[in-house]
Amino acid sequence: MQRFLDLADFERTEVKDLLGLAARLQKKPDPHALAGKVLGLLFMNPSLRTLASFQSGMMRLGGSVFVITPGQGTWQLETRSGAVMNGASAEHIKEAVPVMASYCDALGVRMFAEGRNLQADINETQFKMIADLCEKPLINLESAVNHPCQALADWYTMDELDVPERGKFVLSWVNHPRALPLAVPSATVHMAALRGMEVVVLRPDGYALPDAVMDKARAAAKASGGSVTETTDRAAALKGARVIYAKEWGSPQHYGDVEAESRMREYLNDWCVKDSWFKNTAEDCHLMHCLPVRRNVAVDDEVLDSARSVVIQEAFNRMVVQMAVLYRLLRNA
Amino acid sequence: MQRFLDLADFERTEVKDLLGLAARLQKKPDPHALAGKVLGLLFMNPSLRTLASFQSGMMRLGGSVFVITPGQGTWQLETRSGAVMNGASAEHIKEAVPVMASYCDALGVRMFAEGRNLQADINETQFKMIADLCEKPLINLESAVNHPCQALADWYTMDELDVPERGKFVLSWVNHPRALPLAVPSATVHMAALRGMEVVVLRPDGYALPDAVMDKARAAAKASGGSVTETTDRAAALKGARVIYAKEWGSPQHYGDVEAESRMREYLNDWCVKDSWFKNTAEDCHLMHCLPVRRNVAVDDEVLDSARSVVIQEAFNRMVVQMAVLYRLLRNA
Amino acid sequence: MQRFLDLADFERTEVKDLLGLAARLQKKPDPHALAGKVLGLLFMNPSLRTLASFQSGMMRLGGSVFVITPGQGTWQLETRSGAVMNGASAEHIKEAVPVMASYCDALGVRMFAEGRNLQADINETQFKMIADLCEKPLINLESAVNHPCQALADWYTMDELDVPERGKFVLSWVNHPRALPLAVPSATVHMAALRGMEVVVLRPDGYALPDAVMDKARAAAKASGGSVTETTDRAAALKGARVIYAKEWGSPQHYGDVEAESRMREYLNDWCVKDSWFKNTAEDCHLMHCLPVRRNVAVDDEVLDSARSVVIQEAFNRMVVQMAVLYRLLRNA
Repeated sequence: MQRFLDLADFERTEVKDLLGLAARLQKKPDPHALAGKVLGLLFMNPSLRTLASFQSGMMRLGGSVFVITPGQGTWQLETRSGAVMNGASAEHIKEAVPVMASYCDALGVRMFAEGRNLQADINETQFKMIADLCEKPLINLESAVNHPCQALADWYTMDELDVPERGKFVLSWVNHPRALPLAVPSATVHMAALRGMEVVVLRPDGYALPDAVMDKARAAAKASGGSVTETTDRAAALKGARVIYAKEWGSPQHYGDVEAESRMREYLNDWCVKDSWFKNTAEDCHLMHCLPVRRNVAVDDEVLDSARSVVIQEAFNRMVVQMAVLYRLLRNA
Repeated sequence: MQRFLDLADFERTEVKDLLGLAARLQKKPDPHALAGKVLGLLFMNPSLRTLASFQSGMMRLGGSVFVITPGQGTWQLETRSGAVMNGASAEHIKEAVPVMASYCDALGVRMFAEGRNLQADINETQFKMIADLCEKPLINLESAVNHPCQALADWYTMDELDVPERGKFVLSWVNHPRALPLAVPSATVHMAALRGMEVVVLRPDGYALPDAVMDKARAAAKASGGSVTETTDRAAALKGARVIYAKEWGSPQHYGDVEAESRMREYLNDWCVKDSWFKNTAEDCHLMHCLPVRRNVAVDDEVLDSARSVVIQEAFNRMVVQMAVLYRLLRNA
Repeated sequence: MQRFLDLADFERTEVKDLLGLAARLQKKPDPHALAGKVLGLLFMNPSLRTLASFQSGMMRLGGSVFVITPGQGTWQLETRSGAVMNGASAEHIKEAVPVMASYCDALGVRMFAEGRNLQADINETQFKMIADLCEKPLINLESAVNHPCQALADWYTMDELDVPERGKFVLSWVNHPRALPLAVPSATVHMAALRGMEVVVLRPDGYALPDAVMDKARAAAKASGGSVTETTDRAAALKGARVIYAKEWGSPQHYGDVEAESRMREYLNDWCVKDSWFKNTAEDCHLMHCLPVRRNVAVDDEVLDSARSVVIQEAFNRMVVQMAVLYRLLRNA
């Protein structure tokens, strides 16, 4: 394995193999596996889980980590090609990325969507620039429309919970004070489809995921024997669900138009997961969320504080699966 | 030892035993004792000594550390129960703390007083929420009214300096541009009392420490054969002192009322430790302070730059005693 | 070796010996050399390469690192002697530096020029205070008029590239949106002179380096058989050059006067390195720059993206030579 950028770069069997490695390393730790190896982490955006879990995971394998956070004690980075750099950014990623890569054995990069041009973000224009600049093993710590580490952890979590591979997986839009990127919903719908599940995307009018995202998930479903549909009908969607995966995202219809998008969301306060959502789900239906979650806006306290919520387990599994990713990238390197 | 939250959770003999372990580890390092262990540090407030000394101490025992600083590259954290999270905070401590705890073998948390409601802060309302959320060994890196690592380091320092256990210990209020929390004075008066010293709290009118703080210290003094009194009479207080421990704190009378508190302090510029304060102390009386100290506001250059000052030694001993705490929490785990 | 503060503290043969150690460690890593050692890094100013390369280098030698960045989760530090500290800075370097030094086995400190008084900066008034406060091995991570780690890496890079020791080295002023410190140009002109090169400082009127800087370089040249001259004549300067070393710095004539300095630079947009600059240089003339570089302001894309640019190699070599510095400071300690 040379890079971990998108779950779609791997066959279903390869993903299962990676999950198997994660399980083995969890059962039988290998604390010197990556002795002498250095992981570099570049965070263009905030993080808690990714920052902590990659450090802890790398250190538990005997390796070391350094972190660079532009704007926090480090220069702001320019990303535009051909820019005349007479503004706030002192350094271009064309220098920063190769330099950081030269110091480490693997590089992880977080770079959220720009949120201005939907097509550019769907094309991963920015992250592809990063990838082209990095000659070392590279890990996607969340890009414009992807978050493969989260997707892998969520798959692992469902396996732990014995959620059937053919079970009903409802990705439900939930509310948030502002438009969030498409990274997690896009990665999630694809992951659940690749796992072979009956995936339903439940969202209000105006919040349909882009065709490119849905098409990619449908292709994965086809190969895995699953299905992907979408609806605004909450009752129908939730009936028989094994998992409600709550996630906030901005309306692709008003991509980059903060005001118009914000007006749409005013009327959607009802999209906060409550106990009542589980009335007709499977009895042991789980609430999943990638965190951070805004309590009582996206998901109610009564759900997050109940046994249905597996959000802490998902977060812990970030470390577990990332250790397998690091192992694959660096152990055989 | 499962937690290190308050010196008052331990018997006097247990504290002495911990100090003995610190001395042994200082004399005879054990650089692989915590190999493979990971310490997580969560700083809700700024730090220099705690941040540096816990990292260095953990690494000197062979362990690893990751640091999370909300607002500095990480989401701001919400602490209020039941909050509708539509503001600046993206994540609740109900998620953040268990998640961080799941990545590490021991968690250290710094969370200063809110400074609004004295009783809530004395009750450690916020830190108790954290403690309830953390299933791993937990270390108090300074809470609303406690700072056990500082207290332990100060005890160790006095032992090194051969300050008699029955010696006179003057905790003196000193000035500062704004009201500071009660954490260090509360921990200090209790520590000196538990050590068995003749403790005098010297402070201007309006700056008496809360009854709860004094009562706790008096109970410790009673058990240890020491005493705790308070006064506004500087000359009487300093007479024969073996230690002047300078510390800034806000008036409990005007807790949370910045303006009223600030007006009181205008007339207290005289509360800056000078050479003249040592006129009638014991000859070898030491100046102690937990740092950071505002030179020429709280303590004069002439004192800080003299041989009386042991502030650097105190700070170094933070690392020394914390290594013993980490050892106890993680070695036998 | 007790300190690494200035290349001028070493004989030419000592520098070459250090470069030889760097080459040996690069060829044959020594991953346990500094096991158990702790490096502390204090950044009073932003950093990317220094922050990442010192961490990575120290970890590759088996050691550990902690980082303190005042203002980023840590108190702001006061540097003025005798200050009445009732402002924004909560701690004085008189405490912070000895405390940090007490936690580590070697301390690295970055402290840019104040940029108010040229003579004070040339005298390294601030960094000398730091040095006087630190009893541990100390590394200059860039001070007012020095950057020895960069200079050492650049020398190493030229050796790798087989740039002749007697070759022509042109340090050329280039433009920047604001006045930058004299640290890198001062260190660079001295380094190239000490290497024995034919050094030409090319700069517009008003941007002559201070006499103290030029005199120091000339003294080094004299000892090494090189030369140091300066000119405003670009064509003459570049003719036959083996290296164009581009660097931004503020006019010493208007030191500390941002407005006057800024007016001078308005007419200097032509000072951005382009392909055409290499018309009469040696055929294999290299473009060097310490980074970060403002593309299309200081150096054009066409040069930075060409094979002439060795800026990534220089940056990588920061780690390589710093490992030798750390080894010397800590291995024999």
